[in-house]
Amino acid sequence: MVSTAPVKPAESRRDRHRRELVDQLCDEARSQLAKGGAGSVTWRGLARSVGMSPASLYTYFEGLDALFTELILRSYGALSAATAAAAEAFAEDSPGDRILLGPLAYRHWALDHRAEFNLIFTDQLPGYSAEPGGETVDAQMAIFRPMTEAVSVALGTDVSEPGQQSDDALQHSIGIWGLFHGLVSLEVNHHLDWLEAREVFEGRLRWALEAIGLPPARPGLAAAFYEWVEGNNQKRCPLD
Amino acid sequence: MVSTAPVKPAESRRDRHRRELVDQLCDEARSQLAKGGAGSVTWRGLARSVGMSPASLYTYFEGLDALFTELILRSYGALSAATAAAAEAFAEDSPGDRILLGPLAYRHWALDHRAEFNLIFTDQLPGYSAEPGGETVDAQMAIFRPMTEAVSVALGTDVSEPGQQSDDALQHSIGIWGLFHGLVSLEVNHHLDWLEAREVFEGRLRWALEAIGLPPARPGLAAAFYEWVEGNNQKRCPLD
Repeated sequence: MVSTAPVKPAESRRDRHRRELVDQLCDEARSQLAKGGAGSVTWRGLARSVGMSPASLYTYFEGLDALFTELILRSYGALSAATAAAAEAFAEDSPGDRILLGPLAYRHWALDHRAEFNLIFTDQLPGYSAEPGGETVDAQMAIFRPMTEAVSVALGTDVSEPGQQSDDALQHSIGIWGLFHGLVSLEVNHHLDWLEAREVFEGRLRWALEAIGLPPARPGLAAAFYEWVEGNNQKRCPLD
Repeated sequence: MVSTAPVKPAESRRDRHRRELVDQLCDEARSQLAKGGAGSVTWRGLARSVGMSPASLYTYFEGLDALFTELILRSYGALSAATAAAAEAFAEDSPGDRILLGPLAYRHWALDHRAEFNLIFTDQLPGYSAEPGGETVDAQMAIFRPMTEAVSVALGTDVSEPGQQSDDALQHSIGIWGLFHGLVSLEVNHHLDWLEAREVFEGRLRWALEAIGLPPARPGLAAAFYEWVEGNNQKRCPLD
């Protein structure tokens, strides 16, 4: 029998070169951004860093905005991947446990990637604006939607079609997101240095999730999460 | 009778000149920051903008960090003043009303001053760090403390000394702050453009304040607040 499955062609030398150069440009821009702020990332400087002329950089990106969009997408992707990995590692846990895991993983990734977290969520690129309805909006929804669905399921809403949720579940999800995003954002930017932010975070999230009627997460869940994170060879969260 | 009250000396010409120049430098730095990001604010550029040599700028600020600290303090001051003015205008309202007013005023100021809001709450100045326990920390506390006290009073805690609160009131205040800060911060940076952010904000805050056991705010409070804001000749919130 002859297979009809499409065969993925091996990556050509030229494609590989392109992919590697785009990676290198992103890494370089991310490191300049972290060191010197958005204003220090220039087209000319990037070209120099990879030994190219400014004109030939246009082969890879349409301009600085396109490069920043790519950077933001990659950071969104890394944040999604971090929360998805936690969900997968604890897939056997109760719905209540799994809903608390999302915020725990979000916070952990953010503290380990402060500049990228701020890049995603705070407008700091002068003149940069994400295309309305564009890729970065989809990337944001990819993070937000699984939570809404989990809250819908935990609230006992009939979710027969993917993406469906009750208005109650949507409102509560936005509130929960606002709460953990706010606490993480304050902690990442050193506004909670005066308190035991890790304990307060868990306590406030447990309070809010139970107040909207979700089943409580088991007592040792956060400890199990931190153990998993360390065993997973991820960097330790600097404030833990 | 001879008055023994100290007479405030009239501001000397030299002091007035100094004050005006410091104001001018702050305005210039704030506008460069909003236009070109943190990386575009330079010592040399600021000196040029006020027609001075870089060396003589040191008469007014110890360096860029000191200037940024001053900018952040002024923004904190403006945010505090906005919430205090709302509290004063509705001083006759119930405790439940007054607790909802803080977040409403916080959100309104932030939407009208997006760059300043991000300047206060997001680290975007490369290499800049606020002095631990320094003035900006005090400025943050000046915003946070009145809320904790209001929550303490509304929860019926005995607050016999100023600054006193129960641990419960502190935990709940941090949660409420996290919630409204998170929602405001997402809205300011265009992450909630897909929903009716103003209604969702009020709804989530009312839900949370009632869930911690506070008396509900009256139904028309938000409408009364927006009316007061407009009558007060403040700029309309761009998303309202």
